[in-house]
Amino acid sequence: MKYNIITPGVLAHMKTIVGAEAIITQHADLEKYSHDETEDLVYYPEVVAKPNTPEQVSALMKLCNDNRIPVTPRGAGTGLSGGALPVKGGLLIAMERFNKVLEIDEQNLQATVEPGVVTEEFMNQAAAKGLLYPVDPASKGSCFIGGNVSHGSGGPRVVKYGTIREYVLNLQVVLPNGEIIWTGANTLKYASGYNLTQLMIGSEGTLGIVTKIVVKLVPLPTLDALMLASFPTNEAACKAVSAIFRAGIIPSALEFMERRGVEWVKEYDDIAFDLKDGVEAFLLIEVDGNNQDVIFADCEKINTVLEAHDCSDVLFADSSAQKEELWRLRRTMAVSVKSNSVYKEEDTVVPRAALPQLIKGIKETGIKYGFESVCYGHAGDGNLHVNIIKGNMSDSDWNHKLKDGIKEIFELTVSLGGTLSGEHGIGLVQKDFMPIKYSNVHFVLWKGIKAVFDPKGILNPGKIF
Amino acid sequence: MKYNIITPGVLAHMKTIVGAEAIITQHADLEKYSHDETEDLVYYPEVVAKPNTPEQVSALMKLCNDNRIPVTPRGAGTGLSGGALPVKGGLLIAMERFNKVLEIDEQNLQATVEPGVVTEEFMNQAAAKGLLYPVDPASKGSCFIGGNVSHGSGGPRVVKYGTIREYVLNLQVVLPNGEIIWTGANTLKYASGYNLTQLMIGSEGTLGIVTKIVVKLVPLPTLDALMLASFPTNEAACKAVSAIFRAGIIPSALEFMERRGVEWVKEYDDIAFDLKDGVEAFLLIEVDGNNQDVIFADCEKINTVLEAHDCSDVLFADSSAQKEELWRLRRTMAVSVKSNSVYKEEDTVVPRAALPQLIKGIKETGIKYGFESVCYGHAGDGNLHVNIIKGNMSDSDWNHKLKDGIKEIFELTVSLGGTLSGEHGIGLVQKDFMPIKYSNVHFVLWKGIKAVFDPKGILNPGKIF
Repeated sequence: MKYNIITPGVLAHMKTIVGAEAIITQHADLEKYSHDETEDLVYYPEVVAKPNTPEQVSALMKLCNDNRIPVTPRGAGTGLSGGALPVKGGLLIAMERFNKVLEIDEQNLQATVEPGVVTEEFMNQAAAKGLLYPVDPASKGSCFIGGNVSHGSGGPRVVKYGTIREYVLNLQVVLPNGEIIWTGANTLKYASGYNLTQLMIGSEGTLGIVTKIVVKLVPLPTLDALMLASFPTNEAACKAVSAIFRAGIIPSALEFMERRGVEWVKEYDDIAFDLKDGVEAFLLIEVDGNNQDVIFADCEKINTVLEAHDCSDVLFADSSAQKEELWRLRRTMAVSVKSNSVYKEEDTVVPRAALPQLIKGIKETGIKYGFESVCYGHAGDGNLHVNIIKGNMSDSDWNHKLKDGIKEIFELTVSLGGTLSGEHGIGLVQKDFMPIKYSNVHFVLWKGIKAVFDPKGILNPGKIF
Repeated sequence: MKYNIITPGVLAHMKTIVGAEAIITQHADLEKYSHDETEDLVYYPEVVAKPNTPEQVSALMKLCNDNRIPVTPRGAGTGLSGGALPVKGGLLIAMERFNKVLEIDEQNLQATVEPGVVTEEFMNQAAAKGLLYPVDPASKGSCFIGGNVSHGSGGPRVVKYGTIREYVLNLQVVLPNGEIIWTGANTLKYASGYNLTQLMIGSEGTLGIVTKIVVKLVPLPTLDALMLASFPTNEAACKAVSAIFRAGIIPSALEFMERRGVEWVKEYDDIAFDLKDGVEAFLLIEVDGNNQDVIFADCEKINTVLEAHDCSDVLFADSSAQKEELWRLRRTMAVSVKSNSVYKEEDTVVPRAALPQLIKGIKETGIKYGFESVCYGHAGDGNLHVNIIKGNMSDSDWNHKLKDGIKEIFELTVSLGGTLSGEHGIGLVQKDFMPIKYSNVHFVLWKGIKAVFDPKGILNPGKIF
């Protein structure tokens, strides 16, 4: 695809659309928009625009479509697959001024929010009204809800509450030609026409730019319990996961952490946590609800399952401070691990009973290719984040040989009934691995759909496929 | 779109694909496949084929695609929008021999089923293993799970458990050109490529033919309570609906029924139910779980809400026999109403707090256009089925004037933030109403997507748009 650069005439037009003060062209000011949280990749846009109305986004899209200028939408830049990197230059549309919670509708348990709202801020506003918005990625304190929509985001509570896919009811979207549509209706379900709402979710900003989001809310549970279970091996911890569900319990979170990850959190974040010898893996298990007896009973049942699965120790958090600290162990893990070394983060997902085989295979692949990995993630969903650490690996092995190792990890993932990316998306950095799972038929369908929405291919080019 | 008829040569080829015994061509034998549960519409296919493997479906599709012969897939024929009617003749592919539950995976709480499995049979098999498949349309005793996928089906328990959209993990699909693909992975979530699984759900058999379905299951709740609340007016009943959720309760079912519907059930099904004077509407409310105290407490809370909303009487079912009888009132309502008269069933869905305005408007429209309607449905989802009864209406008014009345009902629905069809689909009979909600931009996108999957337009032509 051949694109044009932004001429002075087009730039002047952009300034009339959003105002000169909402346009960035200076190299130093563009730096912030040249990277996200994906490895150490850097791509500069030619221009950044910061619109704050759907009409402005529409006018920018129309202008770029008419002039065949690539457009990359950007949320908070917390993505891990490079979805917000402007790899073809052009215009970057920063959604940070779409930062309002427009309505929390207590009658219908719905809310309408702009895409640039920080996820946790919205969660807090909903909670203040006794309502739960449960989609809380680890980056909830900084990520935008619009980015969550684009990636079909999950987080720890998916295991009970589902991904963002189950909360988004309706989306206002600006298409590449500038048309503004609502994808569906503000209803809990509908069956009229192909579901454009669901098609937009997880499309990584390649089909349209989301400008309003209507989500479902649920009553906020009033109680929870949190326990940390220690295991002598990764596999023992992973085996316990499916057994918990089989016992009839659906925890509100069921997270896996490797010992090495906890060690690095302790170094990075100075958390006072007594890491015992012989413990190699942890499950962080939360149960929520509105009745203390039920929560205790669930914890008892989980404890029985854990004991039957080689669990060496269970720590029950006995205060909200302790809960906070245990959650910090998990939530700080990504940044702690990454602060140690150059890294690559791979996102795998399998049917949850296949987790023991997956983690065993990951470690074997690491030995074969000479890399260290630190794994953690949403074990209840079968979703394991694999952080590969450069450490002492040579640049040559890191840049070339490692790719074969990652390929083997994804081949194993697919052979276990899984796929690449449970929630991080494909973006730029996972594209090459897509053929491991998907056939040419899938690519023909995906590219066909892309061409329907974006015939000139201007929107977030170079992503997914 | 110009189609060809099935020549003797093509017919002979079809017989080699599925065996002569699985081909129907006699007019009398075709009759069963010429109608579904939609009004009194009749369209004969030229030929019916009953394949029983994906490869047979693939060969049939390829043959029809090469020869530009229209193909209509059919599940159990319980549809209410004409989705399975072979309006262009051609080949009807009856999926009734795809009738096996292939696996119930107790480790992963998943199952793989063929599309011709009767929904209730699958539910029962899952329940026998302590697992719940909660998507139970009123027709669960006869509908196929494949048809449920095609319509994005719901049912009473959507209100707590979600529609089929939240249970389907992966689909095996035969595309119009005969290619066989799996849409996704057998995982609880994934974020790789546009979500073809979700795109297929609710596409009413126009994008591909589903040949295997992988669904999520959840632990079966062990207890439930059922109550029937009586109200002096429809609007009072509808107003209570959103208040129940606002009190922090998510019932496992919250159904609305009009008095007239209950009267007709009593006539049709000979149910011993004491219908008191002054009662105009009912809510049937179920709560489920695993703890009797919690269920009682929820019932108490609901009762408090009901009392504050003009509820005149609450009947708690005190035995499973009584529960069964109350559920029969609701489940038999569609067939009871329809046995009385020629009818049209319209499917509306709004944000649930808008239900009082919706039902008020429906009744006013009925007075204006001279039709009687009986309403019932999944009030907890804001989903109201509107059965319009011909009764004494003249043929001329029924065939012409009524359409304007229905249009007004949908205009009201849309103005309240809703849309046409919560779960019945658009099929043949709702097509004309689609422009009330959707713009030309939507139609361009939908038709573009259709052309990507089915460039020759052979699959289920004449449906949705």
